[in-house]
Amino acid sequence: MKHLASKIQPPLAIGVDVGGTKVAAGFVDSQGRISGRVRFPTDKSSPKATLDCIAHAVEAVIDRHLASREEIQGVGLGVPGLVDPERGIGIAAVNIGWENVPVKTEMEIRLGLPCFVENDVKAAALGEARYGAGRGRQNLIYLSIGTGIAAGILIGGKIYHGPHGMAGEIGHAVVDPKGPQCKCGARGCLEAIASGPAIAVRAKEKLLAEQGMGGMVLPTLTHPVLYREGNLSAETVFKAAYDKDELAIETLAEVSEYLAFAIQFLALAYDPETIILSGGVAQGGDLLLDLIRSPLTRQADDSWVLGKVYHPEFVQLSALGKDIAVLGAAALVQIYS
Amino acid sequence: MKHLASKIQPPLAIGVDVGGTKVAAGFVDSQGRISGRVRFPTDKSSPKATLDCIAHAVEAVIDRHLASREEIQGVGLGVPGLVDPERGIGIAAVNIGWENVPVKTEMEIRLGLPCFVENDVKAAALGEARYGAGRGRQNLIYLSIGTGIAAGILIGGKIYHGPHGMAGEIGHAVVDPKGPQCKCGARGCLEAIASGPAIAVRAKEKLLAEQGMGGMVLPTLTHPVLYREGNLSAETVFKAAYDKDELAIETLAEVSEYLAFAIQFLALAYDPETIILSGGVAQGGDLLLDLIRSPLTRQADDSWVLGKVYHPEFVQLSALGKDIAVLGAAALVQIYS
Repeated sequence: MKHLASKIQPPLAIGVDVGGTKVAAGFVDSQGRISGRVRFPTDKSSPKATLDCIAHAVEAVIDRHLASREEIQGVGLGVPGLVDPERGIGIAAVNIGWENVPVKTEMEIRLGLPCFVENDVKAAALGEARYGAGRGRQNLIYLSIGTGIAAGILIGGKIYHGPHGMAGEIGHAVVDPKGPQCKCGARGCLEAIASGPAIAVRAKEKLLAEQGMGGMVLPTLTHPVLYREGNLSAETVFKAAYDKDELAIETLAEVSEYLAFAIQFLALAYDPETIILSGGVAQGGDLLLDLIRSPLTRQADDSWVLGKVYHPEFVQLSALGKDIAVLGAAALVQIYS
Repeated sequence: MKHLASKIQPPLAIGVDVGGTKVAAGFVDSQGRISGRVRFPTDKSSPKATLDCIAHAVEAVIDRHLASREEIQGVGLGVPGLVDPERGIGIAAVNIGWENVPVKTEMEIRLGLPCFVENDVKAAALGEARYGAGRGRQNLIYLSIGTGIAAGILIGGKIYHGPHGMAGEIGHAVVDPKGPQCKCGARGCLEAIASGPAIAVRAKEKLLAEQGMGGMVLPTLTHPVLYREGNLSAETVFKAAYDKDELAIETLAEVSEYLAFAIQFLALAYDPETIILSGGVAQGGDLLLDLIRSPLTRQADDSWVLGKVYHPEFVQLSALGKDIAVLGAAALVQIYS
């Protein structure tokens, strides 16, 4: 308890980030301080195995820190896919193979602690408003840009779900009808253009085009970083762009135009106080932020309508880095218990 | 009272539609039955004159029907532009020259009745949910497509404003960066492409192009209706399209693609139960509805994500025609008093 007491103060929530590859968890106090992070590979062999794996992670957090159960308010679980937070059911999550899994009930049986379940992106929006770049904001949009793209929407301090829980699924808005095939089935969805994997594909296609469509990417003096890294990823493209590689910058500028396009739409549809970028692609940092802000600032300068909503800090980067998922999950406990 | 009693039942609300050219008003009962419609040209010589004109319209409704003041719950005012409904202030409305006009206070002094003020499109969303195509819906979007384009958004049965009252201003989302100049200052806003005047301009440009850019539109056998009508308007274009004029159909199909594009975005952003089309352009009726539904149905068939939100009746036409403005304004009284 010594170590714990010096860092975080009860009441404590346990935030659990249930992902397709790992389950991460940790204690979070009311100030958003984290302690006792654990991380296990996700056992996806069955829904039961995944639930056991989550329970194991939670018990590991508790064991490591010897916190008494009385100090623990509850457990918040941010899970992928479609969630019914009221009934605590994981309705559909392709990447962990869940279909109508009664997460809340099953976890409460396993842990003997109150559990709260929410879609991970929606929970993260709450975490960002409570501890991050949106601190003190009641109306914000948290835009997660990683392998997928989705928005978590906060209205009046509360997560907005929509009647089917689909509010914020703007990763599947078609932004270029002639664009690449998306795994949802449509063509030219924002996610098929601006997700991490899509950025890598776009950069690679540009490289191939520059090599004369030969099908093989050969090193040139102009794109040293892109080649040095071997397999292209969004991370590589950003690294090259920071090194002033023109092809990488061009790739990211194009993608950012689409992101800015979606953001202006969200801005005018929801009139939020701020839109916070997170996820793997948002690790692109200030370069991404500048590329997205630039067309938006131009548009807000032109249009008095967008100008009423937009301001220099309107689009921000998440302030919470990789902790956002655990913090968001913990925020569920702090809000709902 | 005889005539009144046979048609509508107290308690009665008076709904007032304050427009740039006319002030319309009428009694509305809790079943959405209207009686005693009056209509006056809007006196825009000063804000005071406009308020007097509104008071005059309300008194005319009361005088015509000899309703006793006890039967009148209150007066709802749907006004253009930016409104602060809590304080009852018309913050900015270009077309009637209002800037920070204390409408509620001024009208309550003039009328001695409780008054409720709201943006006209937002009030109409409420009216549609209470009496129209959205009856019984708690989450809907009312999309007004006329001289301007804006959405009124209902969440959990309540009008959603956003922190600056700008929620739903998607008429000024840029949907084609190379598109026509919009009066908001930007280029290619949805309103600059799909509003009534924009439809007329697009049809005219197509005609001119077909005439070889001669600058003068000459009658041809292929577009008899378009020419017969003289000055082109959205109404003329729809009339020609119903007469199977190809150029008119092409014009409307193009415009409808943009509207469908905005609608898929709203669908994925808000996950509403239904989106209801109203305003002058929506008078285009089934032809417009089919042209908008067609690309959306295709996209929902392709994408399981949009498919979760979209259904055959997802996009509907307003069931209330020109009464919607008065009904929406009256609904304010019924909701808030």
